[in-house]
Parts: sequence; C-alpha cells; structure tokens
Amino acid sequence: MPPGALTIIGNTGDDFEHCGLPISPDLDTICYTLSGLADPVRGWGRAGESWNFMDALATLGGPDWFSLGDRDLALHVLRAEALRSGTSLSEFTSALAARLGIAATILPMSDDRVRTIVDCDEGALAFQDYFVRLRCAPAVRGVRFDGADNARPGARVLAALADPGLAGIVICPSNPVLSIAPILAVPGMADAIRNAAAPVLAISPLIGGKAVKGPTRQIMQTMGVGADNAGVAAWYGDLIDALAIDRADAAQAADLGVPALVTETLMNTDADKLRLAHWVLDYFNGG
Amino acid sequence: MPPGALTIIGNTGDDFEHCGLPISPDLDTICYTLSGLADPVRGWGRAGESWNFMDALATLGGPDWFSLGDRDLALHVLRAEALRSGTSLSEFTSALAARLGIAATILPMSDDRVRTIVDCDEGALAFQDYFVRLRCAPAVRGVRFDGADNARPGARVLAALADPGLAGIVICPSNPVLSIAPILAVPGMADAIRNAAAPVLAISPLIGGKAVKGPTRQIMQTMGVGADNAGVAAWYGDLIDALAIDRADAAQAADLGVPALVTETLMNTDADKLRLAHWVLDYFNGG
Repeated sequence: MPPGALTIIGNTGDDFEHCGLPISPDLDTICYTLSGLADPVRGWGRAGESWNFMDALATLGGPDWFSLGDRDLALHVLRAEALRSGTSLSEFTSALAARLGIAATILPMSDDRVRTIVDCDEGALAFQDYFVRLRCAPAVRGVRFDGADNARPGARVLAALADPGLAGIVICPSNPVLSIAPILAVPGMADAIRNAAAPVLAISPLIGGKAVKGPTRQIMQTMGVGADNAGVAAWYGDLIDALAIDRADAAQAADLGVPALVTETLMNTDADKLRLAHWVLDYFNGG
Repeated sequence: MPPGALTIIGNTGDDFEHCGLPISPDLDTICYTLSGLADPVRGWGRAGESWNFMDALATLGGPDWFSLGDRDLALHVLRAEALRSGTSLSEFTSALAARLGIAATILPMSDDRVRTIVDCDEGALAFQDYFVRLRCAPAVRGVRFDGADNARPGARVLAALADPGLAGIVICPSNPVLSIAPILAVPGMADAIRNAAAPVLAISPLIGGKAVKGPTRQIMQTMGVGADNAGVAAWYGDLIDALAIDRADAAQAADLGVPALVTETLMNTDADKLRLAHWVLDYFNGG
C-alpha cells in the first residue's frame, strides 16, 4: 500500500497511568510491531530490552507488577511530557509512528479518556489490574468503558472513516468485547463505520471455537455473546458486511447470519500475517 | 555518630524539571554517596549504571544533553509521582534516605521552589543549562535565586537548627555563591543558623587560591567575592564562627578576619573524607 493509505485506529481503553506515566499498551504494541522494534517472543515491549529501571524501582519500594523496560520508558516519559504540554494523544501517536518510520497513520480511537473496567467478584478492576497484575484469574461478571459516554472519536479518525476514497474497513481479530467494544463504545464511532463508503470486514478471533490467545472465549460467554463464530457475527450485527473465519470452521459458513469468507486466519509468523493482509486487500479490491 | 544525630540540609536551587521529571541533583548525590550507590569516578549518578533509556530517548527525538541512567530514573519517576500526590520533597527525601539505609536525616533547604539562575551574556540560564548543557562555558555576570524571597526553610530544617542539643553546624566546602548561597537566600535560614546554640564552622572550598573543582573561583570573582580564603571569610561574615583552611594556606590564617583553623581540606579518597569529618567532629566536641 502507498504511504498514508492505511489508517489504524487503536483501542485506548487499556490505557492507564503507572508510576505517573501514561501507558498506551495497544498503541505502543502497534508502533513497536510495525517499526520492527517489538519483542516477537514476549509479545509486548521492545526486543533486546533491559530491566535496570525495574530493578532499581523495586529496591526503592516502587510497584513491580507492571514491567517497564529501560528503552520502552523513553516512549512513556516523552508521552507524559507531551500530554502535559497540551499535545493530544493523536498528535503524539502519529508523530511517534512517523519518527519510527511507519508509513501507516496510527491513531487512538479518541483523545478523550476511556478506561476499560472489568467487574469481577473481587470488585471493579482497571483493565491492567485484571490482565497483568492478576493475570486474568478473577471471574469476570462484566466489562464497561468508563468515560466512553462523554468521549468523541478523534477528528482524524472520523476523517479517515468519511474519506470517499476509502476501500475498506477491517476489524482485526482482537477480543470483540474487550478490545473492539471500547472503540465502538465511543459515541459516533459505530455510525461513522456504518456510514463509511467502504465495506466492513471483521476477522473472527475464534478458530475451532477457541481463542488463539487470552481470555476471549470465557469473557464472551460471560457477556452473553455466544462463544463461537455465530456469536461473533451476531455481536457485530449490522456493523459488518462480512465475517472472515478460519478454514477449520468452513462448515459453519452458511449459518452465521452474515456473509462468511473462509481463509487461514491463524497468524503465527510474519508470513502468516502478510498472507492474511494481502487476502484482506484482495477482498476490498474485489479480488 | 549515633543514627539520627546528623541532619544534612541540601541545596535545591540546582533542581529542575527534565522530561517532565523533577531532578534534585544535590540531594540525589548526597543520597547515592551516603548509601554507597554513587559512581565515584563520574562524580554523579549511580555506579554500574546503564544508559538504554537515553539511547531510546535520543532515537525518539528526546533531549539528550542531560543523562538519566536507567537505575537513576527509578528515583526520579518515584519522586515525580510522590510530589504530584502531595508528598513534600522533605518527606520524600528523608524516606528515600531511610530506604537506602542512610542513618543521617537528609532534607532539602525548603519545600518551596527555588531556582538558581545564572545571568550570562547569552541571557538568563537555568543552572543545569549553564552547568551541564553549556559546561560552564558562558561568562557569568550574576547569580540569583528565583523564588527564594517567597520560600520558607523546611520545618524539620528549622527544628534541627533550633535543637538546643545541637553540637555544631558545618558549612561544607561547596561553592559559596552557587551552592551555599541558595540555602542562605531562603528567608529565615541565615537567622536560624545565627541563632543556633552551636558554633558554625565553614570549610573553605579554595586551596592555594584555586577551587578543587568547578567554576568556583571565576564565579566568586564575578560576584565581587575575593577569590581567596579572605574573600570566603568576608562573604560568610558574621554567619560563621571559624573558617577551616587547608594546610597549604596556613600562612593566611592570621589575616582572614575570622578565627582560622588549619587542617587538610582536600578530599580525594574516602579516607580523606573520613579524616576531615572526624576532625570537624573533634572541633565541635572541643577536641
């Protein structure tokens, strides 16, 4: 794709403040991944990272449940200062992506504060408390997005969705109720997607009825979403024009209630990711 | 000395904000030195430090003229959060010292903001701009302490100075007009020292008419302070009861205008420092 042709809208419901620094796990992972800085084994943070800050922090009595690598810290410190000085998260993130040589535009869903709260038997947990500190162990009773009601989609997000030349919108195979829902919870976002000139294709996060990683299936069931492709399709409803499912689930294609497309959705290697990306582009190009 | 018997009052005029983090170079150097964490060769920061944060910061376009080590950062991040949450610099610093196993009480001169400004031909420079970024190269026309007029000595500073059991007050051989002056510029501080029950001994920073390090001599001249022991004595005036000078300057002892004490004031090794410290204690103990 030519530079600038791709806009990525990231979830900021997982964002939080740690040690006084604003952390944007989803946006950071996108930036690190597309710039080749990501640690492919650990799945978060930077490759070749060192942890001397964390060692010293623990010695001084600071919190050690969320790991901030020495190199990764540079991003958080710069973002903290940028946000304090009035730069929006959209401006900071798109400038960061450009600085890292990423040709795509990377934007938060909103510059307003939205926080994913996981209601558990233990009480209401901030997302990173649930996901990192407690390692998804608590039984989930519900998920909500604090602040979403008063948030607005980023201006550049709306502009990208309203672009008459838009060829397609792809909803990536993240957890629908944890990672996609906060984006859709921003008032005006779902309508902007519905009103876009382009078809909307979601990729199912389930293969053979199971999530590739994370607590997707358990939480979908808790939230009353059928934990299968039909449940995913029903949950997205009229927002999407088609659902891509894995070849392993091809037998379900006729029963999803939306047009189903069958391909290999599992992404283990870079080659897998490239193949699926090309397949998505071919779909939007009518191929 | 028994634990708690020593209170150290540190200069905060050199403090500044860097990358949104509050840095207290003098207090930090005291804490690192007394806890054995300091880098003895570099003279600032921690021994065995790594610089991966700085590398990443420079890559992301952040400022690289002031080096923050990966381990050192833990202190600045914790302090930033503590100050933001309403903890005073005094509380944070004394808790830090205790955490590092330091038996002495370490306090900032004030919890109010005081900033040393160096007036140069290039304009008014924040102290670290002059000292670190420009490496003391600009010609100094004057030094002032922004905020000092409205600052108050820390409550525990005043309590320590008012302690009827106080055996002595030592003014360390720092640059009088750059490092001691900001402490004395806090209204009430000089009177608290004058009114203390204990004798006040200053150690001259000059040996053979030269400063052991830094731009002491040049700046003293610029500020109209004679750049010799007589100038130091005159500058401190009635604040001090005696001035300790190096044996190399013993011939000046009778001409300083204050009682002079002669000893070895040069501190290169830990043994040198211990010897001078014991000498000071013996002086206060009437030895």
